[in-house]
Amino acid sequence: MKKANKKLNAAIIIIGNEILSGRTQDVNVVNISTWLNNLGIKLEEVRVIPDIESTIVNTVNTVRKKFNYIFTTGGIGPTHDDITSKSIAKAFKIKYCYHPEAYKILKNYYEKGKFNVGRRKMAKTPKNATLIYNPSSAAPGFYVKNVYCLPGVPSILKSMLGGLNNKIIGGNKILSKTLSLRTVESEISIPLEKVQNKYKNLEIGSYPFFQQGKIGVSLVMRSDNLKLIEKCLCDIMKFIKKKKIKVIVRK
Amino acid sequence: MKKANKKLNAAIIIIGNEILSGRTQDVNVVNISTWLNNLGIKLEEVRVIPDIESTIVNTVNTVRKKFNYIFTTGGIGPTHDDITSKSIAKAFKIKYCYHPEAYKILKNYYEKGKFNVGRRKMAKTPKNATLIYNPSSAAPGFYVKNVYCLPGVPSILKSMLGGLNNKIIGGNKILSKTLSLRTVESEISIPLEKVQNKYKNLEIGSYPFFQQGKIGVSLVMRSDNLKLIEKCLCDIMKFIKKKKIKVIVRK
Repeated sequence: MKKANKKLNAAIIIIGNEILSGRTQDVNVVNISTWLNNLGIKLEEVRVIPDIESTIVNTVNTVRKKFNYIFTTGGIGPTHDDITSKSIAKAFKIKYCYHPEAYKILKNYYEKGKFNVGRRKMAKTPKNATLIYNPSSAAPGFYVKNVYCLPGVPSILKSMLGGLNNKIIGGNKILSKTLSLRTVESEISIPLEKVQNKYKNLEIGSYPFFQQGKIGVSLVMRSDNLKLIEKCLCDIMKFIKKKKIKVIVRK
Repeated sequence: MKKANKKLNAAIIIIGNEILSGRTQDVNVVNISTWLNNLGIKLEEVRVIPDIESTIVNTVNTVRKKFNYIFTTGGIGPTHDDITSKSIAKAFKIKYCYHPEAYKILKNYYEKGKFNVGRRKMAKTPKNATLIYNPSSAAPGFYVKNVYCLPGVPSILKSMLGGLNNKIIGGNKILSKTLSLRTVESEISIPLEKVQNKYKNLEIGSYPFFQQGKIGVSLVMRSDNLKLIEKCLCDIMKFIKKKKIKVIVRK
């Protein structure tokens, strides 16, 4: 993987009425975000939008100028509600047409006579888009400039991320450490804020949890600098010990 | 529930680094969206944003003008990363201060001497905000105009929605029917598009699935008009029968 000298960020645009209607639980954000952490790219925004061309065009054109990488999920299948490729072409003012390589891949994948109109639609992309190969079900994703278009089916999406590792310029891996405590947030909020103020280049998140009828708090430290995380952890441990709060080993 | 004469829509703003980092799987969108379907309010956008004041202020001020209802989740606890209430006050240019009723609720909830600084923070809201009561853990949410602020912990959030049923003006319940078929999308995409073009006031979604090693497609029809859904279903069944496609009863 190539590395950049600056911090890189990303946004995800989830295109799908099924997520907005509550019918489908999205899991692609967790998968893409975890993958981006390893590449050293920080996910900074997610938008879930409906299958409406003007909304997709406007959202893509707003978001792609604000972040280094944009990933879209969903809407690249064969049915009428799959309008991502066409909308991306419109956003970039590029012709929407058959991609010769995608056409060849799909034609070879289906038996003779089975490469019907619906399937041929999946060979259409914005002109000269670069393909993202699909080791699960042939139909490729694609990218235009900094906008990477992936399918909505989680298992297929996940199988396609690996192929992007060498194409995307990343940064230093984003690391995190979690400290789980048998306490409540309000017991630690004051000293914790002091520690956060000391470490401006590190994010400390505080998350209450319930486990086997007991409550606790997980503190998550996040940075691309392991030494900084360790120093911060030491400072937190100082007030934890002073307050005689129990550290929990979570499974 | 009071009913409006026009179609009503909503957006959700998820405030939380833990969702963006991939640490936590959001489930609040599904819960809020399902609840909104029953109220006849259509969820039309979701944004996930980090715990950064300027981002919260800008996002709230952009989104609240575009949709009838805005629901925020997360960031109303006692720690340094809980900045939703303060940010909402800033977005509306309202003073951020102790809410007398919230203060009273929390003071009564905690034992004497246990209502510390962290806990008192949870009694602060934008001035004159209306409270959203919390039957699970006392700390209330609140709303200012069309912006409803809820906690991030799913079980607590869910328990607070019921109290809003009589406060929110809704519309006709949004209904949906699902037809699952033993086929692939590309087999039905052409006749399905024709049916969609016939029913402009109804949404048809097409979703491939894998179940026990077999593939299939679920067609979801969505509208607030049951008769329209039934008519549409009849039209779909016509080409399904003609193509001898098997209908699946899904569990």
